[in-house]
Amino acid sequence: MTKVAEAFEQLKRGVHEILPEEELLAKLKEGRPLRIKAGFDPTAPDLHLGHTVLINKLRQFQELGHEVMFLIGDFTAMIGDPTGKSATRPPLTRDQVIENAQTYEQQIYKILDPARTLVMFNSSWLSGMSAADMIQLAGRHTVARMLERDDFSKRYANGQPIAVHEFLYPLIQGYDSVAMKADVELGGTDQKFNLLVGRQLQDSYGQKPQVVMMMPILEGLDGVQKMSKSLGNYIGIHEAPDEQFGKLMSISDDLMWRYFELLSFRPMSEIGQFRRQVAEGANPRDIKFLLGEELVDRFHGAGAGAKARDSFIARFQKGGLPEDMEELSLPAGAGLALPQLLKLAALTASTSDALRMIQQGAVRIDGERVEDKNAWFKAGASHVFQVGKRRVARVTLI
Amino acid sequence: MTKVAEAFEQLKRGVHEILPEEELLAKLKEGRPLRIKAGFDPTAPDLHLGHTVLINKLRQFQELGHEVMFLIGDFTAMIGDPTGKSATRPPLTRDQVIENAQTYEQQIYKILDPARTLVMFNSSWLSGMSAADMIQLAGRHTVARMLERDDFSKRYANGQPIAVHEFLYPLIQGYDSVAMKADVELGGTDQKFNLLVGRQLQDSYGQKPQVVMMMPILEGLDGVQKMSKSLGNYIGIHEAPDEQFGKLMSISDDLMWRYFELLSFRPMSEIGQFRRQVAEGANPRDIKFLLGEELVDRFHGAGAGAKARDSFIARFQKGGLPEDMEELSLPAGAGLALPQLLKLAALTASTSDALRMIQQGAVRIDGERVEDKNAWFKAGASHVFQVGKRRVARVTLI
Repeated sequence: MTKVAEAFEQLKRGVHEILPEEELLAKLKEGRPLRIKAGFDPTAPDLHLGHTVLINKLRQFQELGHEVMFLIGDFTAMIGDPTGKSATRPPLTRDQVIENAQTYEQQIYKILDPARTLVMFNSSWLSGMSAADMIQLAGRHTVARMLERDDFSKRYANGQPIAVHEFLYPLIQGYDSVAMKADVELGGTDQKFNLLVGRQLQDSYGQKPQVVMMMPILEGLDGVQKMSKSLGNYIGIHEAPDEQFGKLMSISDDLMWRYFELLSFRPMSEIGQFRRQVAEGANPRDIKFLLGEELVDRFHGAGAGAKARDSFIARFQKGGLPEDMEELSLPAGAGLALPQLLKLAALTASTSDALRMIQQGAVRIDGERVEDKNAWFKAGASHVFQVGKRRVARVTLI
Repeated sequence: MTKVAEAFEQLKRGVHEILPEEELLAKLKEGRPLRIKAGFDPTAPDLHLGHTVLINKLRQFQELGHEVMFLIGDFTAMIGDPTGKSATRPPLTRDQVIENAQTYEQQIYKILDPARTLVMFNSSWLSGMSAADMIQLAGRHTVARMLERDDFSKRYANGQPIAVHEFLYPLIQGYDSVAMKADVELGGTDQKFNLLVGRQLQDSYGQKPQVVMMMPILEGLDGVQKMSKSLGNYIGIHEAPDEQFGKLMSISDDLMWRYFELLSFRPMSEIGQFRRQVAEGANPRDIKFLLGEELVDRFHGAGAGAKARDSFIARFQKGGLPEDMEELSLPAGAGLALPQLLKLAALTASTSDALRMIQQGAVRIDGERVEDKNAWFKAGASHVFQVGKRRVARVTLI
């Protein structure tokens, strides 16, 4: 395999879709450092593993010699919601934008190489843009094509209002690609429409259109819904090593392979070997340990992973965690209190039994003793619950 | 009748629709000079009588003590067509805008009082507008409401492209009303949607919404299609007195009353008297003379009308124009050459007969001898054709 073909194969790992694939191959063949764009929302700078799927791909590009442009979309965030309807989205001030950008940098440089990363703000080119320029930009796209965007077409069909400025935002995002002379733009599968607007606008401004690379949405700890803070099924970049390790140990064996593909930096050949080992009888828990160690090391420094693993083993040895645990799912409804959950999982005979066990310090979650009898669990939560030494189950709320 | 009620009645003359009428009455009752807005396209400053319907209404407001804001929409004209598709509409330069504005002023001050007229350019407030301001403005309207506009909904339904910037233009026009603090805006019936956007935006910017006054579209000399330069059925403000007078004499008696209502400054009571006189047997031609004199006076100074009338009478006396003339309509097709037209109107026996008569100097159009055998007539043309002394007809091409 040539070097380019090898790079191409590496870059395709875990990717949902590349549009068009042959253009990416052609750009790689040019041999120059490509300009790789990825846009981020400056209002929510707390990253979890879901966000790192895309950041990991950026890192891969860097390792292959390309230049990452980490774009903070501050221009529209500083405008806020022009309709005035969304009180929950007040406009950001310049100071907040800078603060949030610093928070981003602290997080992304755990993965990215700062020397090959340009942090950019689209206000740099959009603040100076006039209304007349905006009109010129708007003239390059049609209403009908905008209404083809999935969410727009649904809202239009359902009679839900779309404010006119919402048609300008994909154009602004696309114009960023023009201003940045992007060769490749990465985004989630939900960004397909906007990413393609970037291609079209670059063409309309006489540039070679960017290749669009869509990353899949990472499933949360429950293995079903997307990883998200509000669903509670996430692992934050900033969480403590034991927390991260414990949460990773709670995922199903199936989900483990998905996480390996999208989150591990190990080559796919090595991951393939792991799969074979498990098929031949190795304990998946030991393979999961490797994933947990790698990720904890990434966010807390070399050695932190091994420490978290040892602490996990120590806790569970005390708690007497069996090698093979029952796994079960419970309907979460509006949420469950810990005693209820223990009863529904048949870990205790009744809620009053559960309360007694909590009081006696006999209940553990992911190996940690729990004292709060009011602990509350929502859909998406997935943990190992233990009562005393024997009774243990991995419970996922759905 | 109170003075306000009287003013209200006067202002309603010839108007197609006032939205809402009661708000106009309320504003008149405030007793202050109202700010009356009317927008004009800076690309076509050649005015004809059709344009003066609205300008006459502006004059009425001035006579009642109000202030006219003559808005030249130069901002978008200087942008041109952002889609680049319309080669026929190149962007105007600032010099052209100023030149066109001067041409407008030369024409409108034949009707308006310069002391109560503010000529404004919307580039004054829009050139300094940023893209961010444009987004804020766009957030005040929805896509669904834009698509309710007649031409947009038709184009959307028929799959004809609507460029996104076209949704911004009604907002810009509406924002002009905000910047100008307009109390009333005048426009054609085809402007209803945009005029109402102005109302809505003023409300959204905390202003009292303007009253919208829609003027009817004036019919051309044919009495059927709207007066327009391209249809050839117009009377230009700059045309020579004899030309204007002759064209006015060619209109039908029915159309004369319409022109009286929309173009004459005579009170409706006097026009009512004329109607009675004609009903009682007066020659409509003599009443039409009064209309012609008034309009020629307006555009060429006092006395010019009487002179044009005398010259008209002299020409037709020489030509032997009968008191009652045959009136007929002919299908114009792609246009008719003079000899063809004379034959179809049965004014000559054949086209070769017609050619001979032209050569002999025996053919007159609106009293003027014609020598050009290639003279060409299109749909909308309406003239009195004479061959020799006896054969005469008013012919309208449809």
